[in-house]
This record gives sequence, structure tokens and C-alpha cells, in this order.
Amino acid sequence: MPDTHPNTRLEAFCDGVFAIALTLLIIDIKIPASEAISGNRELWLALKRLGPSIFAFVLSFAVIFITWVNHHRFFRQVNKSSAPFVYANGLLLLSVVFMPFPTAMLGDYLLTDHAGPAIVTYNAVTVVQAIAWILVATSARRLTKDDKAAALIRDGKRNGYIAVVVYSLLALLAFWFPLTIAIVTTVLWAYWLAFSLQAE
Amino acid sequence: MPDTHPNTRLEAFCDGVFAIALTLLIIDIKIPASEAISGNRELWLALKRLGPSIFAFVLSFAVIFITWVNHHRFFRQVNKSSAPFVYANGLLLLSVVFMPFPTAMLGDYLLTDHAGPAIVTYNAVTVVQAIAWILVATSARRLTKDDKAAALIRDGKRNGYIAVVVYSLLALLAFWFPLTIAIVTTVLWAYWLAFSLQAE
Amino acid sequence: MPDTHPNTRLEAFCDGVFAIALTLLIIDIKIPASEAISGNRELWLALKRLGPSIFAFVLSFAVIFITWVNHHRFFRQVNKSSAPFVYANGLLLLSVVFMPFPTAMLGDYLLTDHAGPAIVTYNAVTVVQAIAWILVATSARRLTKDDKAAALIRDGKRNGYIAVVVYSLLALLAFWFPLTIAIVTTVLWAYWLAFSLQAE
Amino acid sequence: MPDTHPNTRLEAFCDGVFAIALTLLIIDIKIPASEAISGNRELWLALKRLGPSIFAFVLSFAVIFITWVNHHRFFRQVNKSSAPFVYANGLLLLSVVFMPFPTAMLGDYLLTDHAGPAIVTYNAVTVVQAIAWILVATSARRLTKDDKAAALIRDGKRNGYIAVVVYSLLALLAFWFPLTIAIVTTVLWAYWLAFSLQAE
Repeated sequence: MPDTHPNTRLEAFCDGVFAIALTLLIIDIKIPASEAISGNRELWLALKRLGPSIFAFVLSFAVIFITWVNHHRFFRQVNKSSAPFVYANGLLLLSVVFMPFPTAMLGDYLLTDHAGPAIVTYNAVTVVQAIAWILVATSARRLTKDDKAAALIRDGKRNGYIAVVVYSLLALLAFWFPLTIAIVTTVLWAYWLAFSLQAE
Repeated sequence: MPDTHPNTRLEAFCDGVFAIALTLLIIDIKIPASEAISGNRELWLALKRLGPSIFAFVLSFAVIFITWVNHHRFFRQVNKSSAPFVYANGLLLLSVVFMPFPTAMLGDYLLTDHAGPAIVTYNAVTVVQAIAWILVATSARRLTKDDKAAALIRDGKRNGYIAVVVYSLLALLAFWFPLTIAIVTTVLWAYWLAFSLQAE
Repeated sequence: MPDTHPNTRLEAFCDGVFAIALTLLIIDIKIPASEAISGNRELWLALKRLGPSIFAFVLSFAVIFITWVNHHRFFRQVNKSSAPFVYANGLLLLSVVFMPFPTAMLGDYLLTDHAGPAIVTYNAVTVVQAIAWILVATSARRLTKDDKAAALIRDGKRNGYIAVVVYSLLALLAFWFPLTIAIVTTVLWAYWLAFSLQAE
Repeated sequence: MPDTHPNTRLEAFCDGVFAIALTLLIIDIKIPASEAISGNRELWLALKRLGPSIFAFVLSFAVIFITWVNHHRFFRQVNKSSAPFVYANGLLLLSVVFMPFPTAMLGDYLLTDHAGPAIVTYNAVTVVQAIAWILVATSARRLTKDDKAAALIRDGKRNGYIAVVVYSLLALLAFWFPLTIAIVTTVLWAYWLAFSLQAE
């Protein structure tokens, strides 16, 4: 039995995936091709055109980091493991690993008149993530007998259900009002960040 | 002696490789080039065309995650180390690291009439991985004296031999029946997933 | 409580991000396209043209490694955690993860007559990093009561303020004197490296 | 003091870099562009043309893995840390992180008549790595008082000096006899692998 704690290796593995997903976001910000640039002015303009990509990068970085903080806090409540718990975490990681894809789409399409599919996809991935949280919380519930931990896990599960409803709605509405929903999504994450900063 | 356990650092190293291989899968899903897209409809169609890539991504994510879970369970039986054991793990990692290549091929060629080479390659990599498992189990066998652990390792070795035969056959048959074998491979992994969820 | 120390997992997560950011720098050194090369002489010339990219790679590798060493030393002073401390570290990681972007720009534009924007961006990212250090130190200050640790944290904070001023100035001056500022930035980091080698 | 051992975090950081460098090698094996392929036969031919890339991938994977095993064994002898020791490891990591570049070159140019620069570069990176090992061993020497550890470190240092001479010679000779030197380099690493498998 190498591990002092049954979840140590799962936790470390999740951390690795979070850290890599976070860092890989940068490779979707392509620097302006040097052949097309012949002066300072043009380079500044090309950098300015990267604005939506940099916005999408910072947003997704924040989203993944907040998710990691929640994951970290959640795991402190769970000190047993089970196969369903491990695989529920696997689904959560799948949704985290997938993030660079809608992020890159958001960067490329946010300010065009066909931003809709990018924002729908972005919020759809968040729905999958919320479903994963519900499964993680449900499988964790069976692993703890401690009352305080059980209450916190129940809260996490309820938040997961709320998130499924809210982000499904946002994904749907993004078909018609892409930019408004992009702003709502950003504000919502800013609120989550502020909330998470208060907690612990 | 920094490590409390001789395999701690090998385990952490393997986890790192698994986590990165998993996350790198996403970079083969290229977002549609914005120059070629002029409206919502075209963007949705372009996303639809990514279907096989996303299928290949989810399949390989599941394959690597299941492999990691098995690796995790296997290592709990082994509390000594040896050079052959370390290098057998190295071969296992080689096959895991190689996964993004057949995955990307599957994504690009699955629905064309020349899907054969992609599916042959995919299953051939799985054969290499099964051979690696046999070597890992064989070298681990010499490191344990515990009866229960020995039985579990023997099981792992037998599964490795079965996998070599099955996936070699699938790789061969994929020359003639690519799509059928693609479906059989997917169903087989779904079965492994269900089996792995029951275990522990 | 799986962790023996409240910052163990944060530390490991940061290490992961540092390690990946460091390693991802290499993917911006593109090898010469084989179609355009028809002999040894041409390949050597193409490699020579990679000079600025390799310089930028080594510089950014050194910058991230020195930052990691400082982070490592800093964390030895802090043995409590708080939400603001975690998120201040998140901002620090954001600036580290962003490094490959100005590095790639530096590699492409350093020896052109429009190197300005690249060097301005490079130093601007360093300013964000210095601000993150101030926030890390400020939030850490509230977590320690030990006098020696408090003094070291205060030093870190002061260095952060100095860095904000110095690198803001360098970023500004790079609008007019790009190459001079590139040399000053490199010399400054060489000095930091020499200083860091003496310490501990 | 969070760490139970002064080198725990350096070790984990190095492991992370080794693991990522290893995994990143795969992104230089580009799958054949689907536009240029219209049948099974063409796809098999395109895969065959990837032969040198796959050879280079396996060679570099083995090189980095063997280096990691050596690093792992070396660190068991050292249970103190110092700034020069940390930065010597930094130089070692720099040479490891750089590996994907000469590997990709080898893959693209090995079977052309201008393979020379690729093989010179490959061996030149190995020379830098050997120099890094000498610095690691020299700085470690001052951290240990144990006789057995000192003897092992002295051996490591001597091997470093031999490697500097041998790989400098190989790099030089590769100017005139690229393919022969490519074979000698591969055989030498196969020998190292066999040697490393015997050890411990």
C-alpha cells in the first residue's frame, strides 16, 4: 500500500490534468505571421486583433483555476475512494481537457456576426462539467459518514443541478443572443470568482 | 533515501505522462478556419464535420483513463522496484504517449473510404500496450512474495496475453472491415469501462 | 484531511504549471520546412536564422526557472493557506503561462525593424508578474506570525514594487529603443540569476 | 517547512519536465494531410514516409527515459540542496526540454542527402546535457559526506566527462559521415539502455 491516503494519487493525477489544460490554452493564441507584417504600426494592429483570443484565454484560465480550487476544497471532505468516484472524476477531467477547443472558437468568432455556435459550445461544455460534478458528489456521498462533510457534498450536488439548468438555458439563448450571453457568462464567472475568494 | 516507498517517484512520473497524453489529445481537434466561414450555418456544418475527431478524442480519453486506473490498481500490489520493472513501465508509457497519433488519424479518416490504415494503426498501438503490460506484470512478479498480490499480477499477465491475441486479430481484420472493427473496438472499450467501474 | 500541509497541493499544482510552461516554450521553435531546403548549406543558413528564437527560448526558460526557484523559496515561509493567497498564486501562474506568447514574438521580431511591440509586450507581462508577486506576498503576510518569515515576505513585497516600476519603465522605453531594452532586460535577468545562485 | 526532504520539490519539478518533454515528442509526428490522400494505398505510403519521424520519436523517448532513470538514481544519493545544485539541474532540464527540436529535425532530414546538420545538432544537445551532468555532480559532491554516495557521484562526474568528449567527437564527425554517426549514436543509446537495465 504505497499511498497513505486512498485519494492521493487520484488527486495528483487530477492536478496534473488541470495544470496542463490551463497551460495548453496559450497555444491557441497564435502570434501574427511575420511575413504579413512590415512595420510597428501593423504589428500593433495585429496584436489588437488578438483581443478576443486574449479575453477567451483569460476567461478559460479563470474558469479552470476556479474549478481546480473547488475540486481541491471538495477533496478535503472525501477520504475514501471507489470506482464510480474515480470515473466521475474522469468525466470531470474530460470536460476540463475539452475547454481549449471552445476557448479557441470564442477567440476566433467572438466579434464576428456568427459568434453563436462558439458561445453555445462554450456553455454546452460547462453543462457537461456540471453533470460531472453531480456524479462526483453523488459517488462521494456514499464514501463519507461524517455529517459536516455530507452537508458540504449535498451543497455541491445542489449547485451542480442549478448549474446544469442555468448553463443549459444560457447555451440555448446563445443561439439568438450570442454577445449578451457571452457577457452574462463572463459576469457569472466573475461572481463565482468573488464568491470563491470569500470562502474557505 | 528521499522516497518513503521505492515506487513513489516512478508512479508520480507515470501519472504525469498519463495526464499529459490525455490532455494533448485536444490539440488534434482543430477549430474551423475563420477565413472559410462566413455565417452561422457554415460554422455549424464545420462543427458537424468534426464529429469523427470528437468521437476519436472521447474514445482515446477513455482508453488512457481506463489504462491509468488499471495502472493505479496494479501499483498497489507492488512495493519493490527493479530496473526491468522501471523499463517495462517505460514501454507502457511509450504506447500511451503514442496514442494521440492514431487518434488524430482516426478523426481524419474514420468516415472516408480509406479508414483501414487508421484503424489498423489504432489497434496495433493497443497490441504494443498489451505487450508492455505483460512485461510489467512479469517483472513485477519477481518483486512480490505476497500470495494475494501474486494472484492479481498473474491475472494481469493473462489479460495481457488475451489482449495481444484479440487486438492483433482486430488489427488484421481492420484491413478488410475497417468500420466494423472500429465499432467492435469501441464496444470492447465500453465493456472494459463497465467492468472497471464494477471492480475494486 | 488528506494533506499533511495546507499548501502541499497548491505547491504541486504551481510546480506542474511552471514545468509545463517551461517545456511548451520549445514548440515555438519551428524546424525549417524540408520542402524549402535542398542542401546542407541551406539547412545551416535556416538554422542560423533561428538564432533569435533560440535566444528567446533560453531567456524565457531562465526567467521561468528563476521564478520557480523564488516561488519554491517563498513557499517555505508560508505554512497556512487562504482563498486570497490561492488566487494571488493563480494570477502569478497566469503570467507564467502567458510567457510563451511574448517569447515567440521576440523570436520572430527581435532582429527586424519592428521589434518594439515584441519587447514592450515581453516587459508588460513581467509587470503583471511583479503585481502578482505583490499580491502573493500581501496575502501571505496575513498567514504568518513568525518574525523571520515576515521579514522575508516584506522583502519579497518590496522587490515586487521595485520590479513593477523598473519593468514598466523598460516597457515604456522599448517603444523608442527596442534593442537596447532587449539587452538591458537580458542583462537584468543574468544579474537576477547570479544573485539567485548566491542566495539560500 | 512543508517538505520532509529538501529535494522533494526539485525532484517533483524535474519529473514534471521530463514527463512533458517525453510526451511533447509526439506532436512532431504529423499525420498525413487528408486532402492529399484519396485511397488506402496512398495512406499506407504516406505512413511509410513517416518512418524516420517514428524512429526519431522512439530514439528520443528512450534517451529522455534513460536520462530520467539516471536522474532518479542519482537523486537517491543526495539529501541536501544548494542554489548551484538547483541551477545545475535547471541546465539539465534545459537540454531535456530542447530535445524535441533536434528530434523533429532528425525525423525530417534523416534520409535526405543533407542529414548532416540534423545529426550534428542532435549530438550537440547531448554534449550540453553531459556538461549539465558534470555541473550537477560537482555541486552534489559538496552536499554529501557519505563515502558510498561520494564514490557514486564521482563515477557520474567521470561519465559526464567521457560523454562530453565522445559526443563532441560524434557531433564533429557527423559533418562528414551523417548516417554512420546516426547509427553509432543509436547503438550507443541501445548499449546505455542495456547497461541501465542491468544496474540498480
